[in-house]
Amino acid sequence: MPDTKYVYDFAEGNKDLKDLLGGKGANLAEMTNLGLPVPPGFTITTEACTVFLETGSTPDGLDDEVSTHLAALEEARGKRLGDPDDPLLVSVRSGAKFSMPGMMETVLNVGLNDRSVEGLARQADNPRFAWDSYRRLIQMFGKTVQHIEGEAFEDALDEVKRAKGTENDLDLDSDDLRQLVDVYKGIVREHTGEDFPQDPREQMSQAVNAVFASWNSDRAVLYRRQERIPGDLGTAVSVVAMVFGNLGLDSGTGVAFTRDPGTGEQGVYGDYLQNAQGEDVVAGIRNTVPLQDLEKIDKTSYDRLMEIMATLEGHYQDLCDIEFTIESGQLWMLQTRVGKRTAAAAFRIASQLVDEGVIDLDEAVQRVTGEQLVQLMFPQFDTSAKVHQLGRGMSASPGAAVGKAVFDSYTAVKWSRSGEDVILVRRETNPDDLNGMIAARGILTSRGGKTSHAAVVARGMGKTCVCGAEELQVNTKRRFLTAPDGTEVHEGDVISVDGSTGRVYLGEVPVVDSPVVSYFEGNADSSDDLVEAVDRIMTHADSTRRMGVRANADTAEDAERARRFGAEGIGLCRTEHMFLGERRQHVERLILASDEEERDAALEALLPLQRWDFLQLLTAMDGLPTTIRLLDPPLHEFLPNITELSVRVALAESRGEKNENDLRLMQAVHRLHEANPMLGLRGVRLGLVVPGLFNLQTRAIAEAAAQLVKLGKDPKPEIMIPLVGSVQELEIIRAETSQVLREVAEETGIDLDILIGTMIELPRAALTADQIAEAAQFFSFGTNDLTQTTWGFSRDDVEAAFFSTYLEVGIFGVSPFETIDTEGVGELVRIGTDKGRATRPDLKVGVCGEHGGDPDSVHFFNEVGLDYVSCSPFRVPVARLEAARATVAQGGGSDSR
Amino acid sequence: MPDTKYVYDFAEGNKDLKDLLGGKGANLAEMTNLGLPVPPGFTITTEACTVFLETGSTPDGLDDEVSTHLAALEEARGKRLGDPDDPLLVSVRSGAKFSMPGMMETVLNVGLNDRSVEGLARQADNPRFAWDSYRRLIQMFGKTVQHIEGEAFEDALDEVKRAKGTENDLDLDSDDLRQLVDVYKGIVREHTGEDFPQDPREQMSQAVNAVFASWNSDRAVLYRRQERIPGDLGTAVSVVAMVFGNLGLDSGTGVAFTRDPGTGEQGVYGDYLQNAQGEDVVAGIRNTVPLQDLEKIDKTSYDRLMEIMATLEGHYQDLCDIEFTIESGQLWMLQTRVGKRTAAAAFRIASQLVDEGVIDLDEAVQRVTGEQLVQLMFPQFDTSAKVHQLGRGMSASPGAAVGKAVFDSYTAVKWSRSGEDVILVRRETNPDDLNGMIAARGILTSRGGKTSHAAVVARGMGKTCVCGAEELQVNTKRRFLTAPDGTEVHEGDVISVDGSTGRVYLGEVPVVDSPVVSYFEGNADSSDDLVEAVDRIMTHADSTRRMGVRANADTAEDAERARRFGAEGIGLCRTEHMFLGERRQHVERLILASDEEERDAALEALLPLQRWDFLQLLTAMDGLPTTIRLLDPPLHEFLPNITELSVRVALAESRGEKNENDLRLMQAVHRLHEANPMLGLRGVRLGLVVPGLFNLQTRAIAEAAAQLVKLGKDPKPEIMIPLVGSVQELEIIRAETSQVLREVAEETGIDLDILIGTMIELPRAALTADQIAEAAQFFSFGTNDLTQTTWGFSRDDVEAAFFSTYLEVGIFGVSPFETIDTEGVGELVRIGTDKGRATRPDLKVGVCGEHGGDPDSVHFFNEVGLDYVSCSPFRVPVARLEAARATVAQGGGSDSR
Repeated sequence: MPDTKYVYDFAEGNKDLKDLLGGKGANLAEMTNLGLPVPPGFTITTEACTVFLETGSTPDGLDDEVSTHLAALEEARGKRLGDPDDPLLVSVRSGAKFSMPGMMETVLNVGLNDRSVEGLARQADNPRFAWDSYRRLIQMFGKTVQHIEGEAFEDALDEVKRAKGTENDLDLDSDDLRQLVDVYKGIVREHTGEDFPQDPREQMSQAVNAVFASWNSDRAVLYRRQERIPGDLGTAVSVVAMVFGNLGLDSGTGVAFTRDPGTGEQGVYGDYLQNAQGEDVVAGIRNTVPLQDLEKIDKTSYDRLMEIMATLEGHYQDLCDIEFTIESGQLWMLQTRVGKRTAAAAFRIASQLVDEGVIDLDEAVQRVTGEQLVQLMFPQFDTSAKVHQLGRGMSASPGAAVGKAVFDSYTAVKWSRSGEDVILVRRETNPDDLNGMIAARGILTSRGGKTSHAAVVARGMGKTCVCGAEELQVNTKRRFLTAPDGTEVHEGDVISVDGSTGRVYLGEVPVVDSPVVSYFEGNADSSDDLVEAVDRIMTHADSTRRMGVRANADTAEDAERARRFGAEGIGLCRTEHMFLGERRQHVERLILASDEEERDAALEALLPLQRWDFLQLLTAMDGLPTTIRLLDPPLHEFLPNITELSVRVALAESRGEKNENDLRLMQAVHRLHEANPMLGLRGVRLGLVVPGLFNLQTRAIAEAAAQLVKLGKDPKPEIMIPLVGSVQELEIIRAETSQVLREVAEETGIDLDILIGTMIELPRAALTADQIAEAAQFFSFGTNDLTQTTWGFSRDDVEAAFFSTYLEVGIFGVSPFETIDTEGVGELVRIGTDKGRATRPDLKVGVCGEHGGDPDSVHFFNEVGLDYVSCSPFRVPVARLEAARATVAQGGGSDSR
Repeated sequence: MPDTKYVYDFAEGNKDLKDLLGGKGANLAEMTNLGLPVPPGFTITTEACTVFLETGSTPDGLDDEVSTHLAALEEARGKRLGDPDDPLLVSVRSGAKFSMPGMMETVLNVGLNDRSVEGLARQADNPRFAWDSYRRLIQMFGKTVQHIEGEAFEDALDEVKRAKGTENDLDLDSDDLRQLVDVYKGIVREHTGEDFPQDPREQMSQAVNAVFASWNSDRAVLYRRQERIPGDLGTAVSVVAMVFGNLGLDSGTGVAFTRDPGTGEQGVYGDYLQNAQGEDVVAGIRNTVPLQDLEKIDKTSYDRLMEIMATLEGHYQDLCDIEFTIESGQLWMLQTRVGKRTAAAAFRIASQLVDEGVIDLDEAVQRVTGEQLVQLMFPQFDTSAKVHQLGRGMSASPGAAVGKAVFDSYTAVKWSRSGEDVILVRRETNPDDLNGMIAARGILTSRGGKTSHAAVVARGMGKTCVCGAEELQVNTKRRFLTAPDGTEVHEGDVISVDGSTGRVYLGEVPVVDSPVVSYFEGNADSSDDLVEAVDRIMTHADSTRRMGVRANADTAEDAERARRFGAEGIGLCRTEHMFLGERRQHVERLILASDEEERDAALEALLPLQRWDFLQLLTAMDGLPTTIRLLDPPLHEFLPNITELSVRVALAESRGEKNENDLRLMQAVHRLHEANPMLGLRGVRLGLVVPGLFNLQTRAIAEAAAQLVKLGKDPKPEIMIPLVGSVQELEIIRAETSQVLREVAEETGIDLDILIGTMIELPRAALTADQIAEAAQFFSFGTNDLTQTTWGFSRDDVEAAFFSTYLEVGIFGVSPFETIDTEGVGELVRIGTDKGRATRPDLKVGVCGEHGGDPDSVHFFNEVGLDYVSCSPFRVPVARLEAARATVAQGGGSDSR
């Protein structure tokens, strides 16, 4: 086996080598090869890291390779590591394939020791700078490499400042810092039993190993679990010659964007800080100036930067974000990457880049995401008027909610019952707050992150939520909160919560409809360039995607909206709501029927009502396929709650009263009571056990369709049987259903071609899909129920009870009810699809769980080869866009100019 | 393609061709080739049947083949089909690979017509016989081939008898029957518009097609669904020359066994009926005589029969059951097959055959079944004393139950609460009877078969049940039943119900322990030849089987019994019962704990109790692996029922009272209430959400084990984590558990090697078993829960609600909780095992669901390659036997002399 190459000079790499060199290393190499001024350096590969993590030591030969590259680096910089007169200093930086901000370690100023610090002082003509650099090295090295508590160093620094009578580092002079270095070296000795290493090469090796090891730090492991980043990738390490922005007024550091990340306009966007290093910008000690001002400060560097920015954008064909340093008038590029942007900017930039001929439409579709589209579709606060922002937290669940602040769940429920809109404000929520969360328009917490209980449960409910707004002090006992500006909000005061931005406002901020929704609704403002960009991209998406997009809609109203939003059919019409309200009495009669006659009478009363339901729905969806699921929930859902009824009966009895109907109901409730209704008598089981029920629904569908055909319409109903676990169940129901269809065809003289298919929502259905496909003309994966049975948890019960714990400890990266669990549930979707098509190659296969509108899930479904996804009407545009993105990403784009 | 051969002369077939020739055809061929006197004939293959069923017509060339074989048959018999002087008559008989008794059709006397009937009359010198044969042909042909209602013929027959003034067919003379033939032909003409076919060849073809078509009759389809016989096998048709046992006193018909089916002794067992046909025996018009009497009647035939029986038993190496006919002194063999026998006889015969050198011990193990062993293990009624049998039904669920008859569920519950043993007697049961069934010692119904509600639910509960005892008239309104002998049993009268035999007795019949159980318990009566046979076969089984057998046992007492029954370890110790009774208060404290201190106190109180539990258990299982499952059920199971508590609190409130503890409990109950507890906060989720709970249990196990090691014992506990769905869950718990084990090892100085593994009881666990195996040292499939989640039904809810419907309509052949559903749940077991072993080749894999003691399931688990099965102690011997049978059947026998 040839020796593996573990070290790449920047000149040897490129941006496509992220697997090997990490994101930072790959982009530094790319810039180097573009001829841009990057400090020389090299990258040690992720492969070296994985060897280190597996064996506990770096691979054989790595040292020699590093030495070779280090020599080249010294050559390029004209300085030598550890040179007592003019030392080369390097930074040792982590950089993995996927960005893991702040998770791993970096050590700066490697190469300083008791002798070279003096050389640096002389060379820079700046002893304070040299000794400050040295103490920073010892501090960072001690913490990162030697695992000494950071406090030890900070305490020592504070001590020196106290002795000097100042609170500001800048007031310390070179002598103070020289003295601090001695203290720091003492700390190192005390904690490690050894002196701070004076050999710069030793410093470097230890730093590299420490960065490698930081891959498996607790927080990094946790982060990866949450972000679903594989644990075996490892990190690369870049060793870069140090450049300094803090050598004087002709030095400085800054960040820049190649275009406005808010609007997408090309131009000069960024910040600059004179005589400073990157850390100082972060520390916020002095204020930055707009990047434009650099032109006045250092026109040469400014012009060069502008050139470079144009080069980078042309090269990356996208908005780039850049970090740079000017060292004594010399511009150095320290990092670049494709920059983050707002949702609106993403659409505008993609469209602009097409106009500029930089990218094609396929690529434009790739440049935006469904989540961005979702953000654009939520109603937004109109902040053009004067608003009073109280503070900001994390955007946990999007939306714009206005209501009276309440500080406990009991009040939330009580006030909302009396018609008030309320915002539930808590430090953090727990399972006891569930009812309050349901009652509230929005939720605001001062603690906890995006995986906290409040965030998880709110997202599950689709409820607006801002969490972790730590600058707001919430006093639940005394029922008020305090903003940083001193404003107090007491119970009953109105606040506005923006779940999309995390902002919280005092009072009622007016809400405006999203212009993007208006566009989908057909009321577009064509002069809006955002609408124009969305239209252009969505039009291309529709012509590109392979999968169809349908909607889940139960009423004609929902169906009409779905159609406007671009749905190409109904993938799931749930019929249970059609039995609620006044119709509940008929279901009750059906359940309480003591003989066939009573039962038939109840069914007959339902027939015209059901027929009317389907007439409406099929009219709205004229010409498009409309999948109607026969009744699914257990019958006891139509009866009173067992506990409430028991209490009522017991209280009546204690008063010596007796209500015959209640007693009769009580009997039925007890007969039908189920310990686990989710796993009970529902779906196809109901159809098999309750004679006539499914036939009633089938007849109503067929009669409605026949009536519409007579009116010259083109109804396309499809009948879907829920909760099938074995082909035998489906065969029996299908025989009955077909019989009813034949009867209606004979009675009406209209020959209807109505497909009969099934939901695949039980593991067994997926596992035996080859058999089930013998009897089914289509499959629709019900991934909500499939998730519940595959994992063995019921959403109602567990989301509040333990999902936040699971997300916190990293068992889930994201709730499996939001994004399909590809390894478990997705595996069943794959098995079911493959087995089904093995039996019936032209089997139409779709999905109608909520995952149908989730971007990651849509990509998975496209990969598995489903024919369509179906989701809530509001999510239809997201699914259209993501289906196209998946098509292009998986190599099926239509426009590859 | 060469022409397929569709017809086999009896001389061309053999007993191994059951697939092609059906059971009957293959055994007739086998006897023919043994040189036994079989009436000549041929068999049309199942392949011809499947062509017919697929295309609607018989395959090309079949007619020619049949003609050729018919000519040979005519040659052999020296008679021609349709010969007006001396006609050959044939029977056309169905016969499939698997016995489907009574499901398909047979037509006798084919070949008679208006002319040949006269020839037959002359040849037999018996016109009555000839005309009776002819009218039987028309009747059978009309019903079977022409689908005329049987009533039409029966009414006509009754009419003739009425005219004659008799009620007995035998009183009709040849003129009456000749007249009846005319009437029958009129019926055929009226119903079909055509004359009864006079062409004998046409009769035969139509009869063959009718038998083919009967494969798909409703009842045959239903039967196959229930028995899980594939629907595409088709039936063979045998065409056999008719022989007649009703030609006079030198004719007759009989059945025989080659040894006593009750005890296994060789000898002469059977019945004979002179001057009769098989149908007459069934009709029971005259009484049969013991087979021995044939020696006096016809010594030549008797001696010949004895010879043949010896030949057959030697050939089949097993007890054979035989049908024969003597036609005018000539003995003919009409059928043979390996005969059914009682459970005790099966063991005795197998052992005897080994003694006789006929079979080896591997074969002996194959000759008995686990179900037979179960029958021998149930307590039995001692019917040696005088008993009064009331009647008999189907043995729906085994056992011997004695109690007072009650006629509704309400009474059953009421009486049992006051300490009475009751037998619930119903016409049939429905879901409302569930509580009554739970309360009763046994269940007796007068209607419904083995798949009726009563039977299914009783088997699920392991409760004694006799169903479909139609001869008992049950009057539930007036609360008594009437036996055929006129005995009345009123509510409160004691009856005894034998679920193993289906027999029902008046009064209390004494119950005796099974001698086989005494043997397992170590109190064998060695003089009992049954015990001897069981011992011999079980000893060989243990030396032969590949899989280990463990027991599910929660207490030391159960564990000791399991050991005596041959368990090689505990596969599942459920710890939840250890928190009931007085300990419930500690769990309540744990749940109600408002801070860490209270919680820790509750846990600490539990520690010594748990340690004591495990000390007991591990002592009982000293030296054997003992798998302990950490707490699985949701915590609210330890709290009062929500409905009962709500009623209590509401009533107290209505009286103006207030119980603080109840209110606190109420809060907790509401917080922990789950809509679907099966899918809720339980198993590993509990361990992750309730700090300290699993650690408490782990510590108790480790401390108990360490204590025993110090006492010189050899405890082998294994810790099993329940309800794992993803490797991340297991990793976290495993890390904590290992930490506790290390701590205990340090504290005690005893280094314990305790395996940590997981249950695979969720579909996701099986699908991601490759990942889970990274963190698990063993797998144990929890097939009860796996069945519930794979099918999406909870046993508690659905068994009573719809399993009987499912079994009746053939969706299940058997409840998937009794025998593993190999296609769905079994597929996951296979996937989980394969994926687990792919990661960890030496992974120990077992099963601890109830399927571990079910014969068919054990065979499946052996095939999949599991290391052990674990089942209830009582089922351990069954599992030992079936594991050996599976090993031998799957080609791994140890004794293949």
